[in-house]
Amino acid sequence: MSIPADTVVSQLQWRYAVKKFDSTKKIDAPTWQALEQALILSPSSYGLQPWRFLVVTAADVKSQMPALSWNQTQPQDCSHMVVFTARENLDAAYLDNYIAYTESSRGLAPGTLAGFRKMLASSVESMHSHFDWNCRQVYIALGQLMAAAAMVGVDSCPMEGISAEGYDKLLGLSGSGYRTVVGCALGYRDPSDAYASAKKVRFATEMVLQRV
Amino acid sequence: MSIPADTVVSQLQWRYAVKKFDSTKKIDAPTWQALEQALILSPSSYGLQPWRFLVVTAADVKSQMPALSWNQTQPQDCSHMVVFTARENLDAAYLDNYIAYTESSRGLAPGTLAGFRKMLASSVESMHSHFDWNCRQVYIALGQLMAAAAMVGVDSCPMEGISAEGYDKLLGLSGSGYRTVVGCALGYRDPSDAYASAKKVRFATEMVLQRV
Repeated sequence: MSIPADTVVSQLQWRYAVKKFDSTKKIDAPTWQALEQALILSPSSYGLQPWRFLVVTAADVKSQMPALSWNQTQPQDCSHMVVFTARENLDAAYLDNYIAYTESSRGLAPGTLAGFRKMLASSVESMHSHFDWNCRQVYIALGQLMAAAAMVGVDSCPMEGISAEGYDKLLGLSGSGYRTVVGCALGYRDPSDAYASAKKVRFATEMVLQRV
Repeated sequence: MSIPADTVVSQLQWRYAVKKFDSTKKIDAPTWQALEQALILSPSSYGLQPWRFLVVTAADVKSQMPALSWNQTQPQDCSHMVVFTARENLDAAYLDNYIAYTESSRGLAPGTLAGFRKMLASSVESMHSHFDWNCRQVYIALGQLMAAAAMVGVDSCPMEGISAEGYDKLLGLSGSGYRTVVGCALGYRDPSDAYASAKKVRFATEMVLQRV
């Protein structure tokens, strides 16, 4: 059951990068479940899902984040802070696991996807950096999450201004094979946040879009 | 007017990477207008919008794309082929223009955002590659576009398997300061596309999502 186009646009216009969250308002469980699904269902190249999402709601962890985020308070005041991490590499073991998982999920005999595995390995081989490529995939998930949040009326703030090393340490990611890339704070805007009513700045269509 | 969470999830579940588009079906004008807005309204770090979107519907251009796309036919058969390009750099002139545009859009006196301009310059200075960073922003727009398309019931296929150099040449991007990064074909699935009914493969939640 698809959604009217003008509703989608008005929700995307409603979205802005929240500066100040209302720290008393929490995202309820069913709404949060949907946003987790938006993360999990996010598209990625070849379906490789080279990511892990950390969903931080623990107050004692959130309270340490502003110091690692140029003193921005959104990670502490929001309801759910998502930390996007990307895999450092795409090694043979990861590809093997992905192929086996796909075969098993789809009820295919082991080895059915050997041709796809070979193509995948060749593609991965040609990348200049697995981590950089994985980071790009992570940004698809970030885009999908923010769009989905806007649809369900949840506010968000993408956060690149964080110390990836600091977050890695705080979240115990060392040795996990995954590294912090970007964050996204989710919750509800504080009524005092003046940015909510600031005019959205977007280049004119003809500056950023060309019809061929 | 926000959308029920389960509707959002079911539309995201409905989405898949289309292998075969119905080349007779076109996205109507109002629906396409909404998807253009999803592109234009896409979030980017600092709001810099370091991108241009080329929307290709011309048959004689689309027909040249499969040869530049590992012989995949989606760019030719789809209704609207979006080519995402990223700026090669973030030079002082671009930042100046963005700041002036923002001041003008918001009715601020010239120079009001000098402090923000300074912070921006320092942040941009510290990036290891402007182009790589701009590419990441482009992937936010890709994520938002695919999510919005799913909401309005439009099918899509993200396309990384394209020759960026070939697309640059085809679209005359040389010297523009922008380079092809990724594509997204949009339209309607062909009823014969077996991938539409294949089980979606996603790692189990505990494999990709950790609650802290």
